[in-house]
Amino acid sequence: MANKEHTDPARMEKIVSLCKRRGFIFQAGELYGGLNGCWDYGPLGAELKRNLKEYWWRKTVQERDDVLGMDGAILTMPQVLKSSGHLDSFSDPMSDCLLSKARLRADQVPAQDGTAVYFKGAKHEATNWSVERVFAVLVAPGKDPIESHKTARKFYGDLMPDKKISPKELELIEDRREEVTGTTSFNPENGSLLTEPREFNLMFKTKMGASADDNDPSSDAYLRPETAQSIFVQYKNVLDSNRVKLPFGIAQIGKSFRNEINPRNYTFRSREFEQMEIEYFCRPEDGLRLTDEWLEARLNFYGEIGIPREKLHILDIPDGERAFYSQKTYDIEYEFPFGVQELEGVAYRTDYDLGVHQKGSGKPLEYFDEETKERLLPHVVEPSAGCDRTVLALICEAFDEEALTDEKGKDDSRTVLRFVPRMAPIKVGIFPLLKKNEEQVRISKEIQKKLQPWMNVFYDEGGAVGKRYRRQDEIGTPYCITVDFDTLGENGDENKGTVTVRHRDSMEQERLPIDALLPWLLERVR
Amino acid sequence: MANKEHTDPARMEKIVSLCKRRGFIFQAGELYGGLNGCWDYGPLGAELKRNLKEYWWRKTVQERDDVLGMDGAILTMPQVLKSSGHLDSFSDPMSDCLLSKARLRADQVPAQDGTAVYFKGAKHEATNWSVERVFAVLVAPGKDPIESHKTARKFYGDLMPDKKISPKELELIEDRREEVTGTTSFNPENGSLLTEPREFNLMFKTKMGASADDNDPSSDAYLRPETAQSIFVQYKNVLDSNRVKLPFGIAQIGKSFRNEINPRNYTFRSREFEQMEIEYFCRPEDGLRLTDEWLEARLNFYGEIGIPREKLHILDIPDGERAFYSQKTYDIEYEFPFGVQELEGVAYRTDYDLGVHQKGSGKPLEYFDEETKERLLPHVVEPSAGCDRTVLALICEAFDEEALTDEKGKDDSRTVLRFVPRMAPIKVGIFPLLKKNEEQVRISKEIQKKLQPWMNVFYDEGGAVGKRYRRQDEIGTPYCITVDFDTLGENGDENKGTVTVRHRDSMEQERLPIDALLPWLLERVR
Repeated sequence: MANKEHTDPARMEKIVSLCKRRGFIFQAGELYGGLNGCWDYGPLGAELKRNLKEYWWRKTVQERDDVLGMDGAILTMPQVLKSSGHLDSFSDPMSDCLLSKARLRADQVPAQDGTAVYFKGAKHEATNWSVERVFAVLVAPGKDPIESHKTARKFYGDLMPDKKISPKELELIEDRREEVTGTTSFNPENGSLLTEPREFNLMFKTKMGASADDNDPSSDAYLRPETAQSIFVQYKNVLDSNRVKLPFGIAQIGKSFRNEINPRNYTFRSREFEQMEIEYFCRPEDGLRLTDEWLEARLNFYGEIGIPREKLHILDIPDGERAFYSQKTYDIEYEFPFGVQELEGVAYRTDYDLGVHQKGSGKPLEYFDEETKERLLPHVVEPSAGCDRTVLALICEAFDEEALTDEKGKDDSRTVLRFVPRMAPIKVGIFPLLKKNEEQVRISKEIQKKLQPWMNVFYDEGGAVGKRYRRQDEIGTPYCITVDFDTLGENGDENKGTVTVRHRDSMEQERLPIDALLPWLLERVR
Repeated sequence: MANKEHTDPARMEKIVSLCKRRGFIFQAGELYGGLNGCWDYGPLGAELKRNLKEYWWRKTVQERDDVLGMDGAILTMPQVLKSSGHLDSFSDPMSDCLLSKARLRADQVPAQDGTAVYFKGAKHEATNWSVERVFAVLVAPGKDPIESHKTARKFYGDLMPDKKISPKELELIEDRREEVTGTTSFNPENGSLLTEPREFNLMFKTKMGASADDNDPSSDAYLRPETAQSIFVQYKNVLDSNRVKLPFGIAQIGKSFRNEINPRNYTFRSREFEQMEIEYFCRPEDGLRLTDEWLEARLNFYGEIGIPREKLHILDIPDGERAFYSQKTYDIEYEFPFGVQELEGVAYRTDYDLGVHQKGSGKPLEYFDEETKERLLPHVVEPSAGCDRTVLALICEAFDEEALTDEKGKDDSRTVLRFVPRMAPIKVGIFPLLKKNEEQVRISKEIQKKLQPWMNVFYDEGGAVGKRYRRQDEIGTPYCITVDFDTLGENGDENKGTVTVRHRDSMEQERLPIDALLPWLLERVR
């Protein structure tokens, strides 16, 4: 659904650079060359993400009477994923390159010109998998297409000496290896010979326990591809241990894993990612209405964390494009600098999930309605948000380069992250005007100790105050407090015991009594 | 280090039962028979764990100027774990049973009587692994040891018809299959023939990316066995993006994974678990002193979350028993009902970790001291706490069955979880005395709405107030607020606008004005 009109690669590059330089996001394992599709949050990124998760939990679980939280394991039994359908059909169509052994997203290869050609009859004996057809040729970068074509034909001829192939039968496609594969394991010399697409499961598999037989399927376990399944599997336990009535929800924040063939767009499409999911159980007749209500609640949430409604696109997925069991699905998309991309889906999933687990486990998952004395399988509405992509949206939305005029009338500029205060990693910078003034330092540290149990603060005494402001602007700190000579009463009694509070966005300053700081800030930063 | 004197299995059984019944902890995948060594937190368990993590973060990161947070990926490159030593030596010695194909912790087999015997010369051709020796015989439960012995000898003879074995050469060991294996995959009929111990790596391995070759080692990835490694790997990025000076720490909370052969003691030894780790970097000459300071800080922390000093045992691990690179290691142990077991280790690890990663990555990890103009590899002190086992300690410590006398003088009792208020999953129960009194219900809900943005509250209008108190006692809610006729002013003006606040532990009640509730509670529940 990427909307090319909105892309701004230069802006994205600046954001990525800032995130590394100031410690929001690092590539996982960067010291060793990096692990593709996995990211680590540095000190500021970790705080930003914590703020998002914390606020989601507060609004979703703590402040609602009808939603309970849970926190399930990542390791998941094959039986669960068999019932949910992930074992059989959570897959992408893949082609193998016979030359490099790279595996490519087949549905992305012919997308550019639609001319990819299938060839019947090729069977690759040298590899473990069965290859029925040669699919297409990708030309290596900087290589003569004719030469690549010859190489491919020769390889094809070696593989199947009894088959003839005309030059026209192998289709040439311009090289798009990086876009298509996201890997560098491609054979750069010879182009590629692609096999017919096959389904490739996106789940990470591992072996659990100490079975002596490494091929024993009973020791298989998977990293969950979504947090939702542990909610469905524990739905009955939650119901039995809490006096809840329909409608009610179970919410969870946690990591999920998908072996994306082509992780891309910075942290947006990662192999390891965190989700914030709600499964809201209800009577069948309320499903459609509640889906609309949740959509509205979620849009309000995005507004409260600083993502304005006008930057969000709501897609009402039409009949035929939704999952077959879904009666209604909304995608909430955001205008990233790399295109319009999904932040969250709000889907009315009917009783599909509880139904498949009831069947798969052989255990009744029905709800008994005390009032109507009726047994029913609840329907479910699922607002499912991506945590990492929302963090990325927060950063993209906050990023600004502001043109200014300095004191001498010269053109100047500043980089500022305009986070809403409740999302900002650091809430307050605290500065003594002069590092050498012991009294200013003492009072600054007193203020720091007073605020610290309630919020993240940053004490800074290095360099000119203007520079300290800019450093805080760049990481999105909404307020800076300066203890100066007025605070000490050196310019008269009027401002004694007050400090300067400087606002990040307007750069305006006001004076507040030290005693008023905590309540003043608490009102603004939660 | 289990101290048998402290075990109380009956108490543990009650705790496990309460945890399931009230929704603290469920077995992962229970609907499908359960996933051994993995646990899901239900609504109350999730809140308890959140409180613990939140408070640890607040005390470790937010309230300290010298510690920064981070949040790293679980999926880890083999190169990282090669350098750290986990790939080569993070293992347990295992024996395979030739009869059942079960794999056993070899070091736990001979521990009981020390008489296990090794036999040279046996080579098992029928399986994939090489077996050099037959190790010992386990006798099946309720079986005649002589018969088991005969079966084992026959099997041995079938495997190696050219070898003779005397009856005395196969050693008999009393059956301890459950303790040893934690599995039921054992052959119950024939006892076991065990091979010589081999090292079995405890890490979970998976394949990442889309390599067409499933045996391609370049696509290996591991689930991290500890959060610490991502801290060491990102140490340089954190240093470069933050103006920090030695000593400083990097803290992280997150999941880790170990394929424990024998998960046991409820959630204590799990295959998926969460850690709270600090790597505190310092100059070499400060290492020993800081280790003692961190030990003290961590002991204070346990006191603040309700685990009293007298229930903690501090082990100063002697020379020869510490990791070879560690100059000092303390274990902090707690008296669980199943024995004295480790909650946390505080280890002075010298410059071992940064050293191996500097060597492994080929990139300098030195710190430049601006003042002394010196380059040095920092040393590190590591306080590493288990989050799930601390949650379990909190529950075990809080659990109490109190004998009471009811209003009619009859013996009564209550179950109460005596969490310190800052750890309690629900902070306040709010009850209208009479469900049918609209005014009481209205005021109760008003109070609820006022408190909810600040803490977890539970509104309950069902049943007698005494019963509602007991339900909250059982989940550890420290305060219950009742809106009654006095609140409405029906018994005079004196108590109008006040409510009853009932204390969980003393069961005493006092009256407080509604307006005073929020600050009164905030002072007590953070």
